Amino acid sequence: MCQADVQQIEPRSGVAFTLDRGQRLTVIDPRGEQVADLVAYNRHDIGEVISSGRTLDYASRIYLTTGDPLYSNRSNVLLRIVEDTVGRHDFLLTPCSADTFRIIYGDTNPHRGCFGNLAAALAPYGIAPDAIPVAFNCFMNVPIDGKTGALTVEPPLSRAGDRIVFVAETDLIIGLTACSALQSNNGSFKPIHYRVET
Amino acid sequence: MCQADVQQIEPRSGVAFTLDRGQRLTVIDPRGEQVADLVAYNRHDIGEVISSGRTLDYASRIYLTTGDPLYSNRSNVLLRIVEDTVGRHDFLLTPCSADTFRIIYGDTNPHRGCFGNLAAALAPYGIAPDAIPVAFNCFMNVPIDGKTGALTVEPPLSRAGDRIVFVAETDLIIGLTACSALQSNNGSFKPIHYRVET
Repeated sequence: MCQADVQQIEPRSGVAFTLDRGQRLTVIDPRGEQVADLVAYNRHDIGEVISSGRTLDYASRIYLTTGDPLYSNRSNVLLRIVEDTVGRHDFLLTPCSADTFRIIYGDTNPHRGCFGNLAAALAPYGIAPDAIPVAFNCFMNVPIDGKTGALTVEPPLSRAGDRIVFVAETDLIIGLTACSALQSNNGSFKPIHYRVET
Repeated sequence: MCQADVQQIEPRSGVAFTLDRGQRLTVIDPRGEQVADLVAYNRHDIGEVISSGRTLDYASRIYLTTGDPLYSNRSNVLLRIVEDTVGRHDFLLTPCSADTFRIIYGDTNPHRGCFGNLAAALAPYGIAPDAIPVAFNCFMNVPIDGKTGALTVEPPLSRAGDRIVFVAETDLIIGLTACSALQSNNGSFKPIHYRVET
């Protein structure tokens, strides 16, 4: 295995990069309680993208962990989770955005959020903002009240050094952020680390 | 109010039609325990489509009912629920498809499902299959175990004549089905009725 350097995503920012079939992507929470939104597209046909609806349907579970595949809108497996030291991630909610901050937080001059960061990072790959789906939100802790359906955004269960590892099942474009929403990250904005290994 | 005729969607099929801003769409379960998948696009820019992730985030709830808006991927309200005699619908899962039947049911010669029916009905409007999102699944009953995250597809709570009514907040293209998945409809395929009123 060729171990690459750890890359840092600065607080409230995002990156995009390619991941080849068979490569491993490790997403690390270096300080704890920090969310990283992840999206993935088929590099050879960017109309194919991860799908929460397909994935949760096939898993019969809303919380995914080691062993679970992430399916595309065309029902192909794009990524598979092969290691997970936390066991609580979200796959229900879209990346936070200027609209999120306006509607939920009442901000008058809102940050562009993970959505804006992903849109900027993915633009060089020809991926339009409308094509950004529900993200796989690593470390995001969204409990559901089974009776009422109420959802709450709680502090992540991740501690410093916790990680989730994915293997690519096809050639991909990945978008990844250090999440920009106060509530999702227990009130402070921290970096995210990641590593790509062949 | 100009009351139009009730239209029938045959079992395991789907339709598409336009809905003008201010018009009401009533979706009726004429026999009970039958799901109808609904998708909606901005008629003047089909890149804008209902978004489960935005809607659930802003509602802080996975079960929507009277008064709740359905937001688009651009955080605009496309539809609002103004009446609901059931109170249990799903907004987590994608329309059933040939892949669903292959992966979940093990069918070797699968039906095209709601996904295929929607793709065919929406094609004349220039909407591609990849642009079909998580649908608002009227009457679909998907309880969640809050502790484990397990989801199950249970018989709908709708009885004969139950309905849900939406008002369009902009000019829309609607896709609507009589759902094709056995489990979602308590083991039999029934029609769906709908009515558009000005």
